[in-house]
Amino acid sequence: MITIISGTNRLNSKSIELSKYYQNQLKKEGLEARILDLSLLPADFAFSALYANGGKNDEFNLFRNIIEDSQKFIFVVPEYNGSFPGVLKAFIDGLKYPDSFTDKKALLVGISSGIQGSALALSHLNDILNYLNMHVYGTRLKIPLIEKNFINGEIVDPKINALSLDQLKGFIKF
Amino acid sequence: MITIISGTNRLNSKSIELSKYYQNQLKKEGLEARILDLSLLPADFAFSALYANGGKNDEFNLFRNIIEDSQKFIFVVPEYNGSFPGVLKAFIDGLKYPDSFTDKKALLVGISSGIQGSALALSHLNDILNYLNMHVYGTRLKIPLIEKNFINGEIVDPKINALSLDQLKGFIKF
Amino acid sequence: MITIISGTNRLNSKSIELSKYYQNQLKKEGLEARILDLSLLPADFAFSALYANGGKNDEFNLFRNIIEDSQKFIFVVPEYNGSFPGVLKAFIDGLKYPDSFTDKKALLVGISSGIQGSALALSHLNDILNYLNMHVYGTRLKIPLIEKNFINGEIVDPKINALSLDQLKGFIKF
Amino acid sequence: MITIISGTNRLNSKSIELSKYYQNQLKKEGLEARILDLSLLPADFAFSALYANGGKNDEFNLFRNIIEDSQKFIFVVPEYNGSFPGVLKAFIDGLKYPDSFTDKKALLVGISSGIQGSALALSHLNDILNYLNMHVYGTRLKIPLIEKNFINGEIVDPKINALSLDQLKGFIKF
Repeated sequence: MITIISGTNRLNSKSIELSKYYQNQLKKEGLEARILDLSLLPADFAFSALYANGGKNDEFNLFRNIIEDSQKFIFVVPEYNGSFPGVLKAFIDGLKYPDSFTDKKALLVGISSGIQGSALALSHLNDILNYLNMHVYGTRLKIPLIEKNFINGEIVDPKINALSLDQLKGFIKF
Repeated sequence: MITIISGTNRLNSKSIELSKYYQNQLKKEGLEARILDLSLLPADFAFSALYANGGKNDEFNLFRNIIEDSQKFIFVVPEYNGSFPGVLKAFIDGLKYPDSFTDKKALLVGISSGIQGSALALSHLNDILNYLNMHVYGTRLKIPLIEKNFINGEIVDPKINALSLDQLKGFIKF
Repeated sequence: MITIISGTNRLNSKSIELSKYYQNQLKKEGLEARILDLSLLPADFAFSALYANGGKNDEFNLFRNIIEDSQKFIFVVPEYNGSFPGVLKAFIDGLKYPDSFTDKKALLVGISSGIQGSALALSHLNDILNYLNMHVYGTRLKIPLIEKNFINGEIVDPKINALSLDQLKGFIKF
Repeated sequence: MITIISGTNRLNSKSIELSKYYQNQLKKEGLEARILDLSLLPADFAFSALYANGGKNDEFNLFRNIIEDSQKFIFVVPEYNGSFPGVLKAFIDGLKYPDSFTDKKALLVGISSGIQGSALALSHLNDILNYLNMHVYGTRLKIPLIEKNFINGEIVDPKINALSLDQLKGFIKF
């Protein structure tokens, strides 16, 4: 069971669409995956589920439990302001510390509206996941111009599509 | 007027204490400063004030307006999970885009409980502020072992204290 | 007098061409600039001018002296292997420590053959220059597809050209 | 066979001492390891073995061949100027492109004289190795105050020593 984290709380995001794409691709490989959609987090979680309130928000704990029960993760990460969404980091800040991600495995997929992509977003996230002792798959996929390259649930650019499938197949064996 | 951003919403944080320290130091230099305390943000701002709701949350807009009216900023940044708090990035994600920070100036001060400090936190934040076309003062101050090095509103380690004052005086002229 | 550092020792590079472009642009603004071309470094400098040999290589010292005499720098930085050229960092490792860059000012221009650009190269270099207490101009310019976007000494993409001139004019006043 | 890369060309470095420590530790685990010592590179390799000269320097090619024949690597990385040594990146820039590191595995160990460590050095190197499609073990070890914490071939701080052995044993199974 792989958990796909749709890394934004923006509604109707490309991230959630791409998360579903990965769920479908995994199904084709005979693997089950669930999507963890950050847009479904309790709206006040950054106050009601962090620090002194860590573990006290039942609704947020459902998300914590999914993380703790999973061993492999795909992070679908949109670029916001030269990094990844603050909500994704706030979510991580609310997880059970220190071992929610220890010795587990992650695949990073970055998306951006612009041409110059999500390189910094994935670098920052990689630093954090390594701090938490998580193994990150070596190839980071970056999909620029997401509105043009990902349409109707398909990666339409053939080169990016091939990279995406290679990365995913590699991760399954990782 | 310099705006000091206390970079966490944790209550009774070292960040808010250190922000007050900087406010006092600036007062000694004859300069007025206000503190923007992220623990006072509306609890659901990451949902009610971002994306399609950008600009629609009156309470959050008070924070936006302070940012837009300010030209110089001190970011007091605690290390959480190998980077800075997600709440600080979510706050930035809610600011008026794209020019809330354009051509403005920032000073970065990182703090950490551990010995190995906030280097990655400040690197990540610097990337984001540069993406937003903000000029960051060249010297990044990192205060490790904050509980030991900052007591009763004073930086007690004499070497760190000297670095802090040098950095602050340099920033005033920056 | 601004010093433009052409950040590779590859012969006939796009970096040296772009450095000359910046020298011409500065001339149009009435400013003199010299180019520091890393392809002219002594071939064994990484061994003969670093560590115990720091300051002992007369030929390398000519480069050190230019750095020490300059206050403002433009770094023209090609992307190699997801960062900037090792030779540029080895060059920095051979400079007089610790104050070759202290309180001086830098502008960063990254170039890449590919579409996804030099974001990580500039982030890494920014970290290093900040470690050396240098002030880096807030806007980092990244020119992707350099063979297509920079031809015969001109930035042919009008949008990138406008960004480049804005950045340069901002830096002159920085 | 694991290859340990001593990441500097400085003579008599702590990096080479620590590389030997890792070689010994691996021997205790019944594993053979060889050390690739960057201080033995041809002095002019950054000019005679890169770009148009890639693959043409026989002496450098001995190093290239070791890289190509190895599947697992330990990088011992000293902090220089807020990152890792330029020589290490220049060495990587001279490797056979693009697949010298593809799908191979790396362990990162950073060392620093100062207290605040090698976090940025390892972050930068991780970015580069990921660009080259290499899998980096999730836990990055950072040893600060190396002259005090590593004496006579032993990591004397018991906490760091335990972290080091945990990391190494994890990497053997990675």
